[in-house]
Amino acid sequence: MVVSHIGLVGLGKMGNNMRERLRHGGIEVTGYDPRPEVTDVPDLAALVAALPEGRRVVWVMVPAGEPTRGVVTELGGLLSEGDIIVEGGNSHYPEDQERAAELAGKGIGYVDVGVSGGVWGLENGYGLMVGGDPELVDHLMPVFDALRPDGPREEGFVHAGSVGAGHFAKMVHNGIEYGLMQAYAEGYELLAAKDIVTDVRGTMKAWTRGTVVRSWLLDLMVRALEEDPRLAAIDDWVDDSGEGRWTVDEAIDLAVPLPVISAALFARFASRQEESPAMKAVAALRQQFGGHAVKPAGPASPGAGPLEPPA
Amino acid sequence: MVVSHIGLVGLGKMGNNMRERLRHGGIEVTGYDPRPEVTDVPDLAALVAALPEGRRVVWVMVPAGEPTRGVVTELGGLLSEGDIIVEGGNSHYPEDQERAAELAGKGIGYVDVGVSGGVWGLENGYGLMVGGDPELVDHLMPVFDALRPDGPREEGFVHAGSVGAGHFAKMVHNGIEYGLMQAYAEGYELLAAKDIVTDVRGTMKAWTRGTVVRSWLLDLMVRALEEDPRLAAIDDWVDDSGEGRWTVDEAIDLAVPLPVISAALFARFASRQEESPAMKAVAALRQQFGGHAVKPAGPASPGAGPLEPPA
Amino acid sequence: MVVSHIGLVGLGKMGNNMRERLRHGGIEVTGYDPRPEVTDVPDLAALVAALPEGRRVVWVMVPAGEPTRGVVTELGGLLSEGDIIVEGGNSHYPEDQERAAELAGKGIGYVDVGVSGGVWGLENGYGLMVGGDPELVDHLMPVFDALRPDGPREEGFVHAGSVGAGHFAKMVHNGIEYGLMQAYAEGYELLAAKDIVTDVRGTMKAWTRGTVVRSWLLDLMVRALEEDPRLAAIDDWVDDSGEGRWTVDEAIDLAVPLPVISAALFARFASRQEESPAMKAVAALRQQFGGHAVKPAGPASPGAGPLEPPA
Amino acid sequence: MVVSHIGLVGLGKMGNNMRERLRHGGIEVTGYDPRPEVTDVPDLAALVAALPEGRRVVWVMVPAGEPTRGVVTELGGLLSEGDIIVEGGNSHYPEDQERAAELAGKGIGYVDVGVSGGVWGLENGYGLMVGGDPELVDHLMPVFDALRPDGPREEGFVHAGSVGAGHFAKMVHNGIEYGLMQAYAEGYELLAAKDIVTDVRGTMKAWTRGTVVRSWLLDLMVRALEEDPRLAAIDDWVDDSGEGRWTVDEAIDLAVPLPVISAALFARFASRQEESPAMKAVAALRQQFGGHAVKPAGPASPGAGPLEPPA
Repeated sequence: MVVSHIGLVGLGKMGNNMRERLRHGGIEVTGYDPRPEVTDVPDLAALVAALPEGRRVVWVMVPAGEPTRGVVTELGGLLSEGDIIVEGGNSHYPEDQERAAELAGKGIGYVDVGVSGGVWGLENGYGLMVGGDPELVDHLMPVFDALRPDGPREEGFVHAGSVGAGHFAKMVHNGIEYGLMQAYAEGYELLAAKDIVTDVRGTMKAWTRGTVVRSWLLDLMVRALEEDPRLAAIDDWVDDSGEGRWTVDEAIDLAVPLPVISAALFARFASRQEESPAMKAVAALRQQFGGHAVKPAGPASPGAGPLEPPA
Repeated sequence: MVVSHIGLVGLGKMGNNMRERLRHGGIEVTGYDPRPEVTDVPDLAALVAALPEGRRVVWVMVPAGEPTRGVVTELGGLLSEGDIIVEGGNSHYPEDQERAAELAGKGIGYVDVGVSGGVWGLENGYGLMVGGDPELVDHLMPVFDALRPDGPREEGFVHAGSVGAGHFAKMVHNGIEYGLMQAYAEGYELLAAKDIVTDVRGTMKAWTRGTVVRSWLLDLMVRALEEDPRLAAIDDWVDDSGEGRWTVDEAIDLAVPLPVISAALFARFASRQEESPAMKAVAALRQQFGGHAVKPAGPASPGAGPLEPPA
Repeated sequence: MVVSHIGLVGLGKMGNNMRERLRHGGIEVTGYDPRPEVTDVPDLAALVAALPEGRRVVWVMVPAGEPTRGVVTELGGLLSEGDIIVEGGNSHYPEDQERAAELAGKGIGYVDVGVSGGVWGLENGYGLMVGGDPELVDHLMPVFDALRPDGPREEGFVHAGSVGAGHFAKMVHNGIEYGLMQAYAEGYELLAAKDIVTDVRGTMKAWTRGTVVRSWLLDLMVRALEEDPRLAAIDDWVDDSGEGRWTVDEAIDLAVPLPVISAALFARFASRQEESPAMKAVAALRQQFGGHAVKPAGPASPGAGPLEPPA
Repeated sequence: MVVSHIGLVGLGKMGNNMRERLRHGGIEVTGYDPRPEVTDVPDLAALVAALPEGRRVVWVMVPAGEPTRGVVTELGGLLSEGDIIVEGGNSHYPEDQERAAELAGKGIGYVDVGVSGGVWGLENGYGLMVGGDPELVDHLMPVFDALRPDGPREEGFVHAGSVGAGHFAKMVHNGIEYGLMQAYAEGYELLAAKDIVTDVRGTMKAWTRGTVVRSWLLDLMVRALEEDPRLAAIDDWVDDSGEGRWTVDEAIDLAVPLPVISAALFARFASRQEESPAMKAVAALRQQFGGHAVKPAGPASPGAGPLEPPA
């Protein structure tokens, strides 16, 4: 029996767009969200009841951690042998492995999917990285085909490996993303700091065709600069969603050197500090050994005396 | 008078392809190269003589440093007031500034162009970053239009600023390139190190549409993996062309933090070391303070004794 | 009742030296080790039986992980309410917290101690970082005083905080150690790479008095260079004991930027790779886009052609 | 003829202390400084005139760059064949090589000395790294012996190599110093961020004896924490004196990987930025692709909606 109707839990920005793309692709979707104004059914029990008998499929698209755990646990009590839960959020892959083992005891299948594409996915399609049993993945192909970008299947979809491999691949994807963004950002800062470069925005725009560094992220960078050429309205405060941290943790576990991705992660941490305890410590050390200029909390530091070399 | 015929010095892989693209674009090209089998004229004097009277344009496309300096100096003696030298190689931008000042004394114009696109440029067009006097740049636009990718001019061409700005922009472009490549490479290594990921090539291919990390470099990565899924025939030895070094030097000069691009540069340095003096020093230190396992030059290190915690 | 006799489990290089220092300090020690040639008693039961009634103290000094877990579990079955287990190995601090909670159910106290000093501790004393209940720490002070270096107590001993804080402090100590060693090692490599510096060993030796960088590690570096001026007999392969990894993991968890310590850790990972998958990927990318020189697995790469600028 | 009287140009904090230590060591010193209240003579000509006939020695101790260049040039006009200029500031070593070549034309010797020890040098002695002709260095030994720390000569003095090697060694010394300070600083921040560690100052103090990380910088760190346990009065703004930059520049020139020292340098650059253009760029990118929370310049960012996974 071919899948033609699924449940979808979580109708935030991502889930809502995915529901729309699935429907355009010919998949019937019953959606659930706690917000009455967007949900199709009042609760998860009603969602499950709305799905056709046979092999029910429920796609979970809620934040990683507690929310996902709660939904999957509740679904585990509502679904039956042969049904399938698809975890499309950003779960940490070891949790997928735990959940899959638990649900296997009840005969419920579990497939993890890393979904990339952000708010642009509705139009462009979503890049999908899938982990799980091949039989389950085969069964779900109509759903994946509706979500993925148009074009050859293998350019927007992969069955990356066993349970957890989908989210592992997405985690690495996001780790790479951190590195790419930081590389463009460093280049941007360098261009902006140089007096002889009078057209930073134009320079980055000129890279969007024909060059080695052309990419979708570069297109977005240009788009941001066209809206705000000096990024004057943007604060230099950058959150991190957890997947960058997991990527570095994983690299440490596997003894894989990750200098660029870790540097990008640490730059985000630093961006959120009001003040840096480490740099206070360095300043304190310099003050101790050499009477180096230290910027006190209050007014400007006085100039050094004449004819005085540093220590 | 519109430019319709230029000289081109250097007919290597880049120069030869550029000659072809220029001719397709309606620009007549007289090319010079020391190799008789590819050159159109026997020497630079003959090249200059072959150009139409008026405002002669010679594009120099030879390796940075000595070769470029030699050609530009020789051309400075052959050209006259009003003529223009275009330096399309990868010169360090301060050299552009020196040369432009020297040639200005003779009334010869100098424009620097960073050219991106590699062997693919013949087909896709070349991304062009240009530095120099606006009047000269305007005069050269037909040449730039023939070389740049099809599509809107501003997506493959920029007049980035005064003399040197073209090569500065290309230098930053290459620095970013180092960071991007290292980010993908780290992600590749992490995928390849993880047992649950059974399709590394397929995973990276699935990123080529719809995802945040899609780019031309990713396409090339997939292409490399399709030729050689484990990169078994490739040595882990990576050269650097100089522009990455200049990028970090420049950042240091401008006090711009560049953690990602510098890490990518240092990874290349390390890739070329037969052995690392620094890591020998760390190993020696560990041996000194704790009797830690040190791998001697010869046979395998003996196992540690039982019940022995590290120092 | 003042502690004057303790049990010590693990008589490897560290444990054996500690037994000797404790005895010199007036603490009676009954030691256990599976190796008959060094042990004082045949098994843990005999060790416990050999201790004076009242408040028995057993110091565990075996490798972190399974060995420590096994010994602590077994001791938990042999000891009674009021007794104290001191974990002096390099346990990860969350394990301390778990064990302390378990043993608290039986009324057995648990104190974690980070011990620094390596093979030099016998002579110089051991730096001690202690975590646990103040009452327990007070009770153990005679043992700590025997082990710590001579001089003011606070220069070689700290009660850093609650259970786990001792090993947390030792973990951070080791993370710092990674950074310090790498800093000296990078400096060493730079000196050794420079032709005008003809006396690398002498230069580092001259830093051992009066300079800002003088330290015990520098003394050891000089010692290593005096034994082997070019470190010719040392392989550039550096192990890591786990605490460096935990330090970076912890920083990620607490969102603390750790660029230096993480770079030192990654340098160790890289030092142990036969070849770098990441750098193979970078080499493959360069080959794809520009026909850059790639060093094939076999013979030397051919020189580039004449007059050919890089892409 | 043994040196027993020298000229000293520059009587700032360093020069003044050095004059005092030299005098204690039995070297007569005539000092010059533009500030009337500290100088011994009205100008450089008077300084030179005050020195005994034969082989005059003038030690220059003024800031690197223009000030040093000016003084050395003026001295070159006042001194004669056989006299010696000692450059004890922090000149970049290539400048030493240029100056030495110029002065050699007049028969004036030039020796470069890297001096370490800061304000503590008066009491502890100064670590000295010397570059230059062996005959000149031998001649100056009485001066070096007066300045260096007590104890074996080779523990506070080195003739590191030819002209420039002294300042090269000092440059590397300072690069290492950057790495060491950052390592301690990162460890400090991690300790301070952890709730179970209740005595950060005590922990670092307990490292000052017996541990692997003990050093003079650690002593200073403890001293700073004893004055101000949370470094509350210290700003997290850290200057850099130029030698850290030169160290990384040199590593790039020699293709030596320098991940730790460069990271420490970049952390200082970042510490001085009011806002980070690079992190603004990363924030802008995240906003473009995913509607990620961006902290606007003004009020706090609103919370994300319910059930919404990150892109």
